[in-house]
Amino acid sequence: MASKRTKKIRKKGLPPGTLLYTGEHTSVDVSVTMTRYGEADLLERRQYFAEWRPIPGHVLWIDVRGLTDLALIERIGADFSLHPLALEDVLNTQQRPKMEEYDQTLLFIVHHLHYEASRGELTSEQIALFLGPNFVISFQEHPDDTFQGVRKRLHQAAGRLRKKGADYLAYSLLDTIVDNYYTVLDEIENALTELEHQIYHPTPTNHIRTHIFGVKRALTHFRRFLMPLREASLRLYRAEHELIDDATRVYLRDLADHVMQILDGADNCREILAGIETLYQTEIGNRLGNIMRFLTIISTIFIPLSFIAGIYGMNFDYMPELRWQYGYFTVLGFMALAAGGMLFYFHRKGWL
Amino acid sequence: MASKRTKKIRKKGLPPGTLLYTGEHTSVDVSVTMTRYGEADLLERRQYFAEWRPIPGHVLWIDVRGLTDLALIERIGADFSLHPLALEDVLNTQQRPKMEEYDQTLLFIVHHLHYEASRGELTSEQIALFLGPNFVISFQEHPDDTFQGVRKRLHQAAGRLRKKGADYLAYSLLDTIVDNYYTVLDEIENALTELEHQIYHPTPTNHIRTHIFGVKRALTHFRRFLMPLREASLRLYRAEHELIDDATRVYLRDLADHVMQILDGADNCREILAGIETLYQTEIGNRLGNIMRFLTIISTIFIPLSFIAGIYGMNFDYMPELRWQYGYFTVLGFMALAAGGMLFYFHRKGWL
Amino acid sequence: MASKRTKKIRKKGLPPGTLLYTGEHTSVDVSVTMTRYGEADLLERRQYFAEWRPIPGHVLWIDVRGLTDLALIERIGADFSLHPLALEDVLNTQQRPKMEEYDQTLLFIVHHLHYEASRGELTSEQIALFLGPNFVISFQEHPDDTFQGVRKRLHQAAGRLRKKGADYLAYSLLDTIVDNYYTVLDEIENALTELEHQIYHPTPTNHIRTHIFGVKRALTHFRRFLMPLREASLRLYRAEHELIDDATRVYLRDLADHVMQILDGADNCREILAGIETLYQTEIGNRLGNIMRFLTIISTIFIPLSFIAGIYGMNFDYMPELRWQYGYFTVLGFMALAAGGMLFYFHRKGWL
Amino acid sequence: MASKRTKKIRKKGLPPGTLLYTGEHTSVDVSVTMTRYGEADLLERRQYFAEWRPIPGHVLWIDVRGLTDLALIERIGADFSLHPLALEDVLNTQQRPKMEEYDQTLLFIVHHLHYEASRGELTSEQIALFLGPNFVISFQEHPDDTFQGVRKRLHQAAGRLRKKGADYLAYSLLDTIVDNYYTVLDEIENALTELEHQIYHPTPTNHIRTHIFGVKRALTHFRRFLMPLREASLRLYRAEHELIDDATRVYLRDLADHVMQILDGADNCREILAGIETLYQTEIGNRLGNIMRFLTIISTIFIPLSFIAGIYGMNFDYMPELRWQYGYFTVLGFMALAAGGMLFYFHRKGWL
Amino acid sequence: MASKRTKKIRKKGLPPGTLLYTGEHTSVDVSVTMTRYGEADLLERRQYFAEWRPIPGHVLWIDVRGLTDLALIERIGADFSLHPLALEDVLNTQQRPKMEEYDQTLLFIVHHLHYEASRGELTSEQIALFLGPNFVISFQEHPDDTFQGVRKRLHQAAGRLRKKGADYLAYSLLDTIVDNYYTVLDEIENALTELEHQIYHPTPTNHIRTHIFGVKRALTHFRRFLMPLREASLRLYRAEHELIDDATRVYLRDLADHVMQILDGADNCREILAGIETLYQTEIGNRLGNIMRFLTIISTIFIPLSFIAGIYGMNFDYMPELRWQYGYFTVLGFMALAAGGMLFYFHRKGWL
Repeated sequence: MASKRTKKIRKKGLPPGTLLYTGEHTSVDVSVTMTRYGEADLLERRQYFAEWRPIPGHVLWIDVRGLTDLALIERIGADFSLHPLALEDVLNTQQRPKMEEYDQTLLFIVHHLHYEASRGELTSEQIALFLGPNFVISFQEHPDDTFQGVRKRLHQAAGRLRKKGADYLAYSLLDTIVDNYYTVLDEIENALTELEHQIYHPTPTNHIRTHIFGVKRALTHFRRFLMPLREASLRLYRAEHELIDDATRVYLRDLADHVMQILDGADNCREILAGIETLYQTEIGNRLGNIMRFLTIISTIFIPLSFIAGIYGMNFDYMPELRWQYGYFTVLGFMALAAGGMLFYFHRKGWL
Repeated sequence: MASKRTKKIRKKGLPPGTLLYTGEHTSVDVSVTMTRYGEADLLERRQYFAEWRPIPGHVLWIDVRGLTDLALIERIGADFSLHPLALEDVLNTQQRPKMEEYDQTLLFIVHHLHYEASRGELTSEQIALFLGPNFVISFQEHPDDTFQGVRKRLHQAAGRLRKKGADYLAYSLLDTIVDNYYTVLDEIENALTELEHQIYHPTPTNHIRTHIFGVKRALTHFRRFLMPLREASLRLYRAEHELIDDATRVYLRDLADHVMQILDGADNCREILAGIETLYQTEIGNRLGNIMRFLTIISTIFIPLSFIAGIYGMNFDYMPELRWQYGYFTVLGFMALAAGGMLFYFHRKGWL
Repeated sequence: MASKRTKKIRKKGLPPGTLLYTGEHTSVDVSVTMTRYGEADLLERRQYFAEWRPIPGHVLWIDVRGLTDLALIERIGADFSLHPLALEDVLNTQQRPKMEEYDQTLLFIVHHLHYEASRGELTSEQIALFLGPNFVISFQEHPDDTFQGVRKRLHQAAGRLRKKGADYLAYSLLDTIVDNYYTVLDEIENALTELEHQIYHPTPTNHIRTHIFGVKRALTHFRRFLMPLREASLRLYRAEHELIDDATRVYLRDLADHVMQILDGADNCREILAGIETLYQTEIGNRLGNIMRFLTIISTIFIPLSFIAGIYGMNFDYMPELRWQYGYFTVLGFMALAAGGMLFYFHRKGWL
Repeated sequence: MASKRTKKIRKKGLPPGTLLYTGEHTSVDVSVTMTRYGEADLLERRQYFAEWRPIPGHVLWIDVRGLTDLALIERIGADFSLHPLALEDVLNTQQRPKMEEYDQTLLFIVHHLHYEASRGELTSEQIALFLGPNFVISFQEHPDDTFQGVRKRLHQAAGRLRKKGADYLAYSLLDTIVDNYYTVLDEIENALTELEHQIYHPTPTNHIRTHIFGVKRALTHFRRFLMPLREASLRLYRAEHELIDDATRVYLRDLADHVMQILDGADNCREILAGIETLYQTEIGNRLGNIMRFLTIISTIFIPLSFIAGIYGMNFDYMPELRWQYGYFTVLGFMALAAGGMLFYFHRKGWL
Repeated sequence: MASKRTKKIRKKGLPPGTLLYTGEHTSVDVSVTMTRYGEADLLERRQYFAEWRPIPGHVLWIDVRGLTDLALIERIGADFSLHPLALEDVLNTQQRPKMEEYDQTLLFIVHHLHYEASRGELTSEQIALFLGPNFVISFQEHPDDTFQGVRKRLHQAAGRLRKKGADYLAYSLLDTIVDNYYTVLDEIENALTELEHQIYHPTPTNHIRTHIFGVKRALTHFRRFLMPLREASLRLYRAEHELIDDATRVYLRDLADHVMQILDGADNCREILAGIETLYQTEIGNRLGNIMRFLTIISTIFIPLSFIAGIYGMNFDYMPELRWQYGYFTVLGFMALAAGGMLFYFHRKGWL
């Protein structure tokens, strides 16, 4: 985590609108996929092809993976009149999820999340979507194809996707990302279930503490993405924007609904985690209490016995018991009796 | 709980609007009851009968129990023009309670809840209600007839139900579900009362801890249903929708009122539970403190006595007390006195 | 508390609007007082007298004490066209405070509260007020005459009450109830002051714990009535309702103001209680810490001394000190010195 | 605090609008100062002079100190048509700060605060201000002249005060009171700084606990005045009231700004106090932990040594070491070695 | 901190609008830089030059560093008709960040922050910006040139800054200050990472406690600047003010966005810090628990052994074991066995 933080490059002192990639994936090969489709036809190119412009009846989707080729990004920005500040947001990968309206386009900043259960870490890849008249441009930080499923459905001429406009494509891309959050939620829930089991096990508990702290941090991180995303998705659904068709609005409501459902789940996890933390604290306290109690009981039994032995170790000239034939055994018996009595008393009090 | 989570089937990668049942009751026999009634007549059929369509002056109620017959659900959806996303919500049984307006219909997602006090678990069955012009369609996950009471009142020609429209039927169904929440609340309150009693009992306390954790989880769960339901019921009451008659609105206000009353009760339970938790922690701490104090007092009394015995166990050639006639008894007496003195001191200090 | 809960009778499965009394005072004699007054004259009857109807220039007040005579309540409801759901609210005595507008009438649900300091319990009596054109109907659960003061002022022809309309009468009744909350607040504040004193006393502290828990519960309970009442009183003050005269509005603002002042006081109590709770926890911790410290110090002093005694109790053939004339007294002196030294050290460290 | 509470006199059962002074200063001499000024002239009288009425171009300020002369207050109320409820608020000195609009006048309820650092108590004096057309009437509970500064500035003909209207005078009075809150805030901040120092000192810590509790209560009290005052001052600044000149509005914004700044400071104090409380708890825990650790270490060292001494105190006939020439010294040396070894081990572990 | 507080000079009793510098930098040399530029030309002067007035097509920027020359500030205020209250805000350096509209000008109060990691302190310098028609006046408390970067960009004729109006200049200045907050955030994050590492180290932990408290206070302080700044920046972006060009509005949204992003980061830090605090408490508790457990185990092992030794130290005439040839060694062996057995038992229980 430390390394990640120190790598962050801030553009302090540079004028606003200067393009500078601030993320981690600096040695990534940039790949571009352009897709142009209508209900009847679909064309795909594996590089940026500036002649293709958005045309009525067709949707143009430009998918850029990798953010290191600033020249390309500036060129796309110029070709499609994207606002310099919007392009700056694409490259500044510490953005919160948001939805912004520009004159000609809508910009969505969302994040593809991945929960690494073993390290208890939530990694995020920032994805920027531009929705304009008849075109969608997506910028991904990472070369992995997050939108493979959408691409497949596009190639199947039969699906709804081909019949609808650019707004539905943008929705589908957002839906893919949000759907993936269910996986993250599931994995966090699994981690919680595992934690619940571990708490009652007598294994070394230091790991659990670190584990709890890790899940907590991941959950906090997760909610930090969800909170503004909820707001953004609600604003998107309610926005009366000409780029968004009324028929698409019901899907956007569904999207906002999913985000709220996931946020709900995350909140639930947080409460369960709080419960687990309390349980853990109690368990640790109990365990130490049990040990101390056991050890103290042993001392408590033997200290009075030692006192009796000490008495008959005194060197007084006149101590009648010492002269008795069975004095020694009497005392031993009395000691056994006292010890037994104390054990019985402790047992009855429920202290053993 | 773990098993429940892992069973969840997510439809990741599928296009939106795909029907897929994600619940647990996968081997349930689907049963359909169709009821068509007006003020004067009532007809009932035990299977789906596509010829019956909503007609003016009559209300049509289709009650589907079990969600495994996707073909049937799709067919009903087509016959009554239900939106694909709405049907998807019917089948995805991890929905939050909500009220959604579609062009022709209103969709309600609510949950029939059941609190199993012995296992401290709150189980939920998702119920979807569609309200359209002159018809109501209800989809229940479970084959049990939750709406038996409403059905009975329908068959009694005298009741208000037969004289009113589909909106009043929908209200009656929702009211049945919300009424049942009072039972859940009562059972949680009983569990709390029992917990309060158990805390002061000297029985093994590990069970209580798990019990508290269980009730807490159930309560959290319960509130997760109530919070969005409150919002939904308020929106329903305030919605100016043509499907809802003005005369029914006062009943909807009453419904929203009930939900808030139950939420209030749940909040109350939560505060009481928090108090119980604090009491429990204090009680546990006190109990351990009492034990340690008792044990330490015993040590504290015997260690000085042992020291005295140790002194007269020393082997110095010249120790005058050892030669005294009653030295031994004097010392024993002094020890008894010292022990008594300490006990008196501890008692006066309130440490015993 | 348990008994109260289990007594609750729910009307599950009954159609909405069914009248059923759900409270505790089931064996109460119902008494009715009817008062009809104008600026010049006042008539009072001790039973329900159906001929008296609201007339212009006169105010009719029907005060029903006891809710067990369902027939009477239904008859009044019919005579004054009260809505069935409103009547249901009158009888369901687990209502939250609220203000509801019906076509012809306004319904207020408020609660007369009583704090029993000795048992730390807050008991509530639900009171329902209907305000209609020229009439007020009040339903009290309990036969005690809460509104005695208002009645007295009515009989004095000189007061403002006789000159004003039904809205001012309703305000006066509400004001009587809210005024009584100051008493409750005062008693809770007294309980807090007493708790503060008890904490520093060396008396058995188990009672205090239960006491704190009790006050906390009463306070929670109190706030549960105040929160919705604040909302209701603000809505009442702001409502542009024809039944409420503009001249009365300034009094309603005063009423809302009182409720907020009381809520403020309750919030203050809650913070003080939280402080007391922390103090109590610290005090308990300190007390145990003090005991353990004292006991441990005794052990710590005697264990080294015992060790010295143990050394001279060894049976070695050649131990020169044992042969010294004043060996014994030297050792005793050394022990005293060591004990004194330790005591001095502990004292200087501030451990005694 | 207890005494203050019990002295409170409630007017339960009296009709609303009845005048009754509920404060503590019941034996106070009432003094009235009347000031009438325009830009050119200023007249002042030391008693109520009913002939002076507000006249255009002049501002009339009536300052009443002491609230025990009910006849005078009623007379002023009648002369300037103040609403009975407003007069009631003047006398009921448990009001929250508020701003209320009546037909002809605006009423402000504010409080002059004083923090007694030594007793950790925040005392308040309620001040009521009426702003009407060309007049201001101020009612102070206490005979001290809080508004001395304003009076002085009035007598200097050159100041802005003389050129402006009654609204600016009212603002100046409010500003005087709010300015004084900075002093309270400073004193609370000083108390916090002192607390921070005390925590690390080895002095008796019971005082600190009470001190923390005291500051906390004062701070809670302080915020209770500030919260509604913020609301009131914002409403005052935003109110479009004919009594308030547009040129004065910018001063009112400044006033609201000051209140928010002070509230900010109080919030800051609260967070610092919470930090101090945590530090204190930790410090107390640490200190006890240190003592117990030290004492336990002493026991731990001497108990094994005593055991060795105990071995050679046994009376077996055949124990070869007892016969050795230097057995005694060997054992003593071994004991010293063991003690030293343990001390070294504890030291390396960082337990000393 | 204490010294800073006590130095604060309040202007209690002075009339509103009186100029008085309340900050710490009282011995600072005041320096003024005036810059007048259009797209083609730029002139700069190093002192206040009253002849330069705002002219159409040119922007005038007056940058005042140091607030001790009241005469100069009053003169600038008069020349540019700044409101007296606004000037008062410039000099009162305990302001919260805010944006205020006056007739002719907008006033921004912001703060340049600096986090001194070594002392864990956040120092702030208040900066006031006036935006008027064609002019910007900035007042800095400190002589350091915070706006060096902007000045440089102004001198480069090619930049966007020269082509735009006064509103863009004001935005650039605000942006410089907000950009610097990222540095503060980074340094706080570094401090957190360091804390996380230190917690698991066995170094003296008292420093960590103070460290945590310091970071917490800095973070609280930081958020106190960010919270109102967020509000102010959102209001600025939404304000429909004639001084702000529509083209600049998108930059202001970006500014507001940055503030929210930083606030988000600060919130994240706060949650991580809370986690660290919990971890620290647990770690401290564990460490003390470990020590006590170890020490108690040693006592527990030796106390029973001492008891055995005590038995054979008794002086009974008839104790057969004492006469045995190998009695001594048998007992020693038995003791070793008992000790070993206990150690084995403790080990198996996981207590060692």
